[in-house]
Amino acid sequence: MKTESGMAMTDTPQLVALFTDFGIGSHYLAQVKARLLQMNVTQPVIELCSDAPAFNPRASAYLLASFLPYMPDGTLFICVVDPEVGGGREAVWLKTERFWFVGPDNGLLSQAARHSQQVMAQRIDLPDLPAHAKTFDGRDLFAPAAARICTGSIPKGRVIAPDHLVGADWPENLAEVIYIDAYGNAVTGLAAGNLPKEQVLLVNGHQLPYAETFCSVPKGMVFWYENANGLVEIAANQGSAKASLTLEVGCPVRWADT
Amino acid sequence: MKTESGMAMTDTPQLVALFTDFGIGSHYLAQVKARLLQMNVTQPVIELCSDAPAFNPRASAYLLASFLPYMPDGTLFICVVDPEVGGGREAVWLKTERFWFVGPDNGLLSQAARHSQQVMAQRIDLPDLPAHAKTFDGRDLFAPAAARICTGSIPKGRVIAPDHLVGADWPENLAEVIYIDAYGNAVTGLAAGNLPKEQVLLVNGHQLPYAETFCSVPKGMVFWYENANGLVEIAANQGSAKASLTLEVGCPVRWADT
Amino acid sequence: MKTESGMAMTDTPQLVALFTDFGIGSHYLAQVKARLLQMNVTQPVIELCSDAPAFNPRASAYLLASFLPYMPDGTLFICVVDPEVGGGREAVWLKTERFWFVGPDNGLLSQAARHSQQVMAQRIDLPDLPAHAKTFDGRDLFAPAAARICTGSIPKGRVIAPDHLVGADWPENLAEVIYIDAYGNAVTGLAAGNLPKEQVLLVNGHQLPYAETFCSVPKGMVFWYENANGLVEIAANQGSAKASLTLEVGCPVRWADT
Repeated sequence: MKTESGMAMTDTPQLVALFTDFGIGSHYLAQVKARLLQMNVTQPVIELCSDAPAFNPRASAYLLASFLPYMPDGTLFICVVDPEVGGGREAVWLKTERFWFVGPDNGLLSQAARHSQQVMAQRIDLPDLPAHAKTFDGRDLFAPAAARICTGSIPKGRVIAPDHLVGADWPENLAEVIYIDAYGNAVTGLAAGNLPKEQVLLVNGHQLPYAETFCSVPKGMVFWYENANGLVEIAANQGSAKASLTLEVGCPVRWADT
Repeated sequence: MKTESGMAMTDTPQLVALFTDFGIGSHYLAQVKARLLQMNVTQPVIELCSDAPAFNPRASAYLLASFLPYMPDGTLFICVVDPEVGGGREAVWLKTERFWFVGPDNGLLSQAARHSQQVMAQRIDLPDLPAHAKTFDGRDLFAPAAARICTGSIPKGRVIAPDHLVGADWPENLAEVIYIDAYGNAVTGLAAGNLPKEQVLLVNGHQLPYAETFCSVPKGMVFWYENANGLVEIAANQGSAKASLTLEVGCPVRWADT
Repeated sequence: MKTESGMAMTDTPQLVALFTDFGIGSHYLAQVKARLLQMNVTQPVIELCSDAPAFNPRASAYLLASFLPYMPDGTLFICVVDPEVGGGREAVWLKTERFWFVGPDNGLLSQAARHSQQVMAQRIDLPDLPAHAKTFDGRDLFAPAAARICTGSIPKGRVIAPDHLVGADWPENLAEVIYIDAYGNAVTGLAAGNLPKEQVLLVNGHQLPYAETFCSVPKGMVFWYENANGLVEIAANQGSAKASLTLEVGCPVRWADT
């Protein structure tokens, strides 16, 4: 299904985007950036998402994939949602027709790979790195790997078939809350394009109709809509769907029989 | 009162500042930045304020204006506190003697316009933009408009008299809490220069005297002072005024009869 | 112990790092950055830590020092944890063999100085600065001082013996919680290299064994480990040590008699 080779690897990234559960504004992010600068990365670095669901590579995988259509060609994503850091999980880097990805092979990159046409995957193998901490691969392994890609010296590693990445067998849609934003809006892992607008959803015992946008429903009313990244999102007009429906990451979303 | 023309528009911004209620560190901010980079913006981009009062263009307008004296000449502000996104409100851009502004015409820019000497205002009209999401004008409308200003191709649009902007008739001072910071200090919409230092303020039933700075009162004491942006601010020395007085955005501030 | 002179001061910083208690993503950070840009600083600026323990220069001093081994040579740190701003405390800048520091002389820089081989310290004395706010030295004093260092015009000031800096007599290790991160992990001011791995620690009445990394203990178990910056850190596997042990900054850490 995916081609594993034939990609020109001579180009370099234009932008580095950090996708992590490090916590918004955390010093972990800064330490990753400092390491990139130390290793002569001159590309701009942005914190795409720093509050990905903590310890939850599965929910995070669907969130990451939803951002991709809106990111510039040539973005390199450093992805860290990594509860098994320091244990046995492998580290990988991917190259697709538009992007690079560096991160743990724990499913986090699986949905990004699914939505790409061409995927080349390799183990990260950097034996010349200095001894480093057991618990901060973002700074000590993924940032150096990213820096080498950014500076044109691609790390060599064992090629992996994309179908062998962890999470390659996960479903295309995840009928759960995968993220809650600062307004209290709850993003799900469901592609909205698949869902008829007349479908009523059932979440925590509440029936939720579709609306096109916030101000098309009364203030405080909870509804679902297609968010700006194409996913089904549960929201309230000028209110918090999280508080109104007691939502949290992992809450299942069902189809109401209406 | 305001001149509407005669400004040289050949210069370009030196800095882009984001003023939003998107939530600190949110991926919405990152998506705006990614769009700017995608559209060849090379100016530095800073997140000036990302926790402006949510859904509250009125309070936000006074907060935004308070930052302006301290910002570099040539800053372009992308401003998004926009509960009516996707509805009928208009989008505007302003050029003043020092700054550019892009945002919704919902009052958010009104106090920035008030404190400028020269204001040129136009509707944002970008018919060549691709179809886009109904709920994320920050990424899909304001960022592209800003990018065109940054790259020297000013978007044309219908000129508006500044007095016709929403909020042009709002008061010059807003005697309310408009923002609460991470320390628990509560900013009001009152210019401190207008207030005698002997004035005692009344907030949530508490009488608050003036002090010049934090360490001039006992630890834990609540007082008002002129904050670093010229507004009346309610604070506690090494404590949280928010917690001590149960403050929230919108709390009225009154003059005590002492 | 420290040499006070003999350092070439002709080089300029490569990177500016902000270490503050301003609050993550706060507009105070943005105002500092805007001032740096206004004063022609072209070096990259990163927010290293913005949630240092509020009003607590002592705990913050140990946290700051722990980041230093991992920061690039030539970093200039603007450090602001400054409850006495506007009062009588002095402002200082330091130059060490690898770094520059600008901040209040309240102990905040003391542990950074301790771990440096060469320290040159001066009072910040910038009589030509315009009149400015009493409560925002980060923007109005430390940023201008940093900008002068970044642009090669070092501010002159009275030289201070490093042993006369506030905090020069503080202990090398602080057996307390000094910081709690977004996961709920609690950092202490104890260098982990000094502590035998078989040592059990006692915190809030709980006995905590050592583990090498998160996934080497059962899910939810609380343990101590050497964090990625070399400090003793109290953590839970995929859980919050803060919540499990009711931790806060200042909690003492003791040696269990086992």
